[in-house]
Amino acid sequence: MNTAQAQLGAVLSAGGPSLARLLERTEARLAEVAETHGAALGVLAAGTLAAGGKRLRPVLVFLCGDGEDDRLVAAGTAVELLHMATLVHDDVLDAAELRRGRPTVFAAACSPAATATGDLLFSRAFAELAATGSEDAVRALSTASSALAHGELMQRADAWNENVPPERYLERCRLKTASLFEASCRLGALFRGRPDLAPALGQFGERLGVAFQMLDDVLDVSGPAERTGKPRGADLLDGTVTLPLILARRQDPTLPGEVTTPQQAEAVCERIAATGALDDARGQALAHVTAAKQALDGLQLSQQRTNALQLVADGVVERYA
Amino acid sequence: MNTAQAQLGAVLSAGGPSLARLLERTEARLAEVAETHGAALGVLAAGTLAAGGKRLRPVLVFLCGDGEDDRLVAAGTAVELLHMATLVHDDVLDAAELRRGRPTVFAAACSPAATATGDLLFSRAFAELAATGSEDAVRALSTASSALAHGELMQRADAWNENVPPERYLERCRLKTASLFEASCRLGALFRGRPDLAPALGQFGERLGVAFQMLDDVLDVSGPAERTGKPRGADLLDGTVTLPLILARRQDPTLPGEVTTPQQAEAVCERIAATGALDDARGQALAHVTAAKQALDGLQLSQQRTNALQLVADGVVERYA
Repeated sequence: MNTAQAQLGAVLSAGGPSLARLLERTEARLAEVAETHGAALGVLAAGTLAAGGKRLRPVLVFLCGDGEDDRLVAAGTAVELLHMATLVHDDVLDAAELRRGRPTVFAAACSPAATATGDLLFSRAFAELAATGSEDAVRALSTASSALAHGELMQRADAWNENVPPERYLERCRLKTASLFEASCRLGALFRGRPDLAPALGQFGERLGVAFQMLDDVLDVSGPAERTGKPRGADLLDGTVTLPLILARRQDPTLPGEVTTPQQAEAVCERIAATGALDDARGQALAHVTAAKQALDGLQLSQQRTNALQLVADGVVERYA
Repeated sequence: MNTAQAQLGAVLSAGGPSLARLLERTEARLAEVAETHGAALGVLAAGTLAAGGKRLRPVLVFLCGDGEDDRLVAAGTAVELLHMATLVHDDVLDAAELRRGRPTVFAAACSPAATATGDLLFSRAFAELAATGSEDAVRALSTASSALAHGELMQRADAWNENVPPERYLERCRLKTASLFEASCRLGALFRGRPDLAPALGQFGERLGVAFQMLDDVLDVSGPAERTGKPRGADLLDGTVTLPLILARRQDPTLPGEVTTPQQAEAVCERIAATGALDDARGQALAHVTAAKQALDGLQLSQQRTNALQLVADGVVERYA
């Protein structure tokens, strides 16, 4: 068992049988959605589904929620579908050929089908949530999905820009990743009938999401490729300016802003690591994890729930340790 | 004044000052949405907005609705945003370079920005509608947006297939075009507080939408390019098998299934026209317009409303006359 699996195991025991059952129902629902939408989508979405992942966003919904209400399953399914939609569209955007070591929808079926598949997953996310009858829930999801798209546009606008300030980088992390973490936690709060908890739990999710993205960006530079399923320096190759590069440039202003081959990317990754920027970025990410945990203080969740959420936060760090 | 403008004028007079005011508020809201979503999107969405169009879907919402409730404006804005999102994504799918005679978002900003812009428009559509607090409304929109994506996938799956049966072609029209017409009419019924009218008004919208798509496909073959803003035979060039081609093949089985140059496309268009398939397809479309009008019978709408909706139906035909 690797560290990530051990961590997930710990979260599952902390969450108890209720969490495991909710996750199982979510898997079943996701499979159902994939199956009921035509042969073409079946294959494509099944591919995305099978690639799996940790279902981190549904876990946040369930741990911020309470009980085993159908609406929690709908919310968990919705956030995962929206996440999958963005993965499929990101693959169009990045023309990435591998994700989690498998060929992506883009590579498997070329861009038009990927765009439409993403749109369908997107639509189904809203359909799942609309079925709960909660206006606040639909609003939380649409706020998040706007933010995701907004973040993606911002990232495109910043591509190859050597002068992106760290604050702007952080705002991008908030939009393109943390917004859905935040929405997941808010949905949990809403469906436990405790909308008063939504701001604090949302804050937990948001800080955690920012840390998640920051650590992901560190990993893109640190590698190794066997671990990430994609070559080192993919962000450099597609012009995405991340915190390690921003910080490294302060120490090593001659760092090239453009690389065109995997070999060049590898070499620039080494130079970034040599400046100490990876440790610095990792340290900043950990501060966000700490802030996330602090957001749980004083919420009077059960000790078991607080433990489970803290374990999820630790898991985000572990994943990149 | 051309025929289409005259027709719109007739609809506006039949709809009365209330319709004109609702449309004005929708324009203002669309401009607001475009402006409040970042400089990058501002330009792209403004481009899509400025390309204009007839706001046919909002008109359906308003004519199937009643009064001047804010929720009608939200619904009109939502269906237009969803329509715009699909236009932007269609341009990615088709790599079209012109739409309504203007460069498309795709051509203007390349595919990644177009995908993200479409996603943002999509998200805002749901956000607008979520703000109404109506679960049924959100469900109607998500059903339509799933159908649109589904239709797009079906069209891709059918590309270059010489054996698409007419029934399958019709189902594609229903999914990729009529579903949003139907949703627009249903939203109007919901927000006039008459959900009992939703099935019949939805049926009106659906039949009209099928006719709209069929006539659009006829126009792609008949031209002229000055009228459509795109070269004749664009569907042939991107492999979209439409009713005129399906019908023409019955008369002229040697019609080539693949064309690669605009000159070849032009020549195949001539051959399709020579078989009489355009008149046949047009006749089938008109039967759907008649069915749409029949769906209004017995609804006991005001005479003014019935007239206005019939004028919209006639306008769809006029547009392609």
